[in-house]
Order: sequence, then structure tokens, then C-alpha cells
Amino acid sequence: MERFDEQTDKATTPEKAPPKRRPGGRTSRTRARVLDAVRMELAEHGYDGLSLDGVAARAGVHRATVYRRWRDVGGLLADVLEATGGDDWEPEDTGSLLGDLIVLNRENLGAMTAQPSMAAALIAASFRSEEAARGLRRLWEDRYTRCEVIVRRAVARSELPAGTDARRLLVAATAPLYHQLVLLRTPPDPDLPEQAARTAVLAATAGAFTPGPSATSV
Amino acid sequence: MERFDEQTDKATTPEKAPPKRRPGGRTSRTRARVLDAVRMELAEHGYDGLSLDGVAARAGVHRATVYRRWRDVGGLLADVLEATGGDDWEPEDTGSLLGDLIVLNRENLGAMTAQPSMAAALIAASFRSEEAARGLRRLWEDRYTRCEVIVRRAVARSELPAGTDARRLLVAATAPLYHQLVLLRTPPDPDLPEQAARTAVLAATAGAFTPGPSATSV
Repeated sequence: MERFDEQTDKATTPEKAPPKRRPGGRTSRTRARVLDAVRMELAEHGYDGLSLDGVAARAGVHRATVYRRWRDVGGLLADVLEATGGDDWEPEDTGSLLGDLIVLNRENLGAMTAQPSMAAALIAASFRSEEAARGLRRLWEDRYTRCEVIVRRAVARSELPAGTDARRLLVAATAPLYHQLVLLRTPPDPDLPEQAARTAVLAATAGAFTPGPSATSV
Repeated sequence: MERFDEQTDKATTPEKAPPKRRPGGRTSRTRARVLDAVRMELAEHGYDGLSLDGVAARAGVHRATVYRRWRDVGGLLADVLEATGGDDWEPEDTGSLLGDLIVLNRENLGAMTAQPSMAAALIAASFRSEEAARGLRRLWEDRYTRCEVIVRRAVARSELPAGTDARRLLVAATAPLYHQLVLLRTPPDPDLPEQAARTAVLAATAGAFTPGPSATSV
């Protein structure tokens, strides 16, 4: 979710089969330049402004190379998302569940409201390209998995009961912000990161994310 | 949010200035047929399959009429959304806050997972057409405003304290479902409507949506 706006390619994609290419070598530098160009073109012009020719020109890379390696706009977007997922992002450890969730939501708000916003552009692109949609789904999954440590730390501090469903808590804490910005398209609310985090913590403390006898039917 | 899938045009748009057209007359029937055709074309083929010619053919209406009245695809989508906003939808009154929110979430899940889903198609279209985005924003606003009665009833039953922020509670209750379906693109979870409703009720009961001394800073 956060750090969609990652500007550097760390080239951490595992390269199976003994590569002639050195990590950090020419191929890796080409990829970094091309992906940077995709990010900039997408953020500035949106999906409709994205073309292999435009990316090749901006990156200063041969058109033939871009066509051979990435095939089409979907291939470029999928690789941008894969590169983002290969970074070393981790949620910040503030020492409290509430603090961790507030910082996470503030990062997400910042990424979504940056001008231009890579995160917002990639979400929009995911409604155009199946490859981008698949890549984005993997990236969300990766980010939420990394964020589960927030809940594990809270359990270790006895802030939350063992057995708390980390994913559900994290979705409850983060969904309102995306809902308002991406779907409802309301103006960014600077209080929302803290409000949504606090709401999730109150619900968690009241047992909303643990299986229990409170699951009465209606 | 719900009843995107409205299939009939109730022709409730106020017609100012003494109309030669009778409500329910020929113009109104033409609009109903055209909007039904837009809904079906959009749900079946998506935004890219939507054209004024295709809509005119499906509706059995002269192309010239469609071009004159709706101009372009954005105009068609905006009118579909306006017609949806003109219905008489109200949230169900189950007698409890939890019950009302569960029913609301189940309606939303049903609308989003219908095959084909008008709601999902309109959300996707809102990333393509500025007019659709504006129309959808108005529709969300209208739906959330109508849902505020759920919170007023809960306050009247003393389930919630007066001063509860209805909009924030409703967003907390409904956002996780849209987040998972539209952004995370996880498979529909039949337990989520109840879980998300219960989470919002627990948070509300714990004071998450009332201004108060709990607003300590971090």
C-alpha cells in the first residue's frame, strides 16, 4: 500500500539460472531506467499517456529493447509493481499499536495524495490492464503480510489478545482512508489516519477480531 | 452504494417549466430504454464496449436522438447514475444497529458480486470518465446521507450516544467490503458483511465516533 512511490529499483528480483548479467550491471541499470520512466510517465500523464515509445524515449533506451523485454503497457506496469514489491519496506515500530497504525495510515495518505501520485495512478491503471490488476493484487497482499508484524508486536506487548486476526484488523484500520480517497473521492481529511487507527484499536480491544462467544447471530 | 442494479427508470427527475411531455410519456420511455441499454451494455462489455451506436441499437432508439440528448459515453453514464440516485431506496429497518448494518453490507456485497455487476462496472467506469466520476461521487454522497437514519434510529433507541458521527460510523462499517472487493480484489467473503458491521458497532459502543477525552495524542 505505501511506498508505491519508490523511485529506485533495488534489483532484488531473484534471477534464477546462472546469469551472465551481474546484479547492478547493464541489464539491471536498463530496467531501473525504464521503470523510473514508466513511473514518471504514468504519474504525469496517466494510463492513457503511457506508451512503450514514450517510455523508451524518456529512459533513453532503445525501443527494440523495451518492446522485446516488456512487450506492452501491461508488461511495464506489472514490472513496476514487482519492483515495488521487491523493496525492503517495513512498517514503522512506534512502540504502540495505535502509533503504528497512525503512522501506517499517514504514509498511505501521503502516497495517495502526492502530486503526482504513483499509488493513485497504479490503482487507476489496475482497472485498465489485467496484468496491472494482478500485479497490484500481489503487491497489496505482500504489503498486508508485512504489516502483520504490527499485530504480532501488539500481542507480544499484551495490548491485544493472542488469536487476534491480524489481516482483518489491518483492513479495518486502513480501508476507510482508501474508501474515501479512491471510491467516495472526498477531499483528503488530515484527521482520518488517526481516527481510523483509533477506531480499529477500540474495536480490537473490544474483541472484534478474535473468535469468541460474541458471535451471536442476528 | 446499493441498488446500482436498479433496472427501471422511475422518471422522478423533476421537470421544471411546464412540460409538453407527460411524466411517463414518450420522452420518459425513451430515457428508460436508453438507460436500460447502457446498464446492460456496460455490465456485459465494460466501459470499452460502450458506444452511443451500440446503446441506440440495443434500445431501439434513433442514433440521432441518443447523440443529441446524451452527447457521449460520459453523458450516458452520468444519466444512469442520476437515475439511480432518483430512486426511493432506503436502508432496511431491522430494529437494531447491528442488524441494519449487516443488511446494508449484504446488499452491497450482492450488488458488487452480481454477474454481471452494474455497481462494479460503474466504479470501473469512474476511472475512465470524469462525468462518471462526478456522477458516482454524487451517488455515494446521496446513499451515505440516506443511511444516516440507521445511526439516528440507534441513537433514539439509546444504542448509541447522541453526537455519534453517523458518516464516520457508516464508512467504518462499509469500507472493508469495498476495499477487499474493489482494491485488494480478494474473493468475496460471505462472513465479511457481518464481521465489518460488528466491528463498527463495537467501535461505536467504545466511543470511536463521538468527540471526547479519549482523543489523546500519540
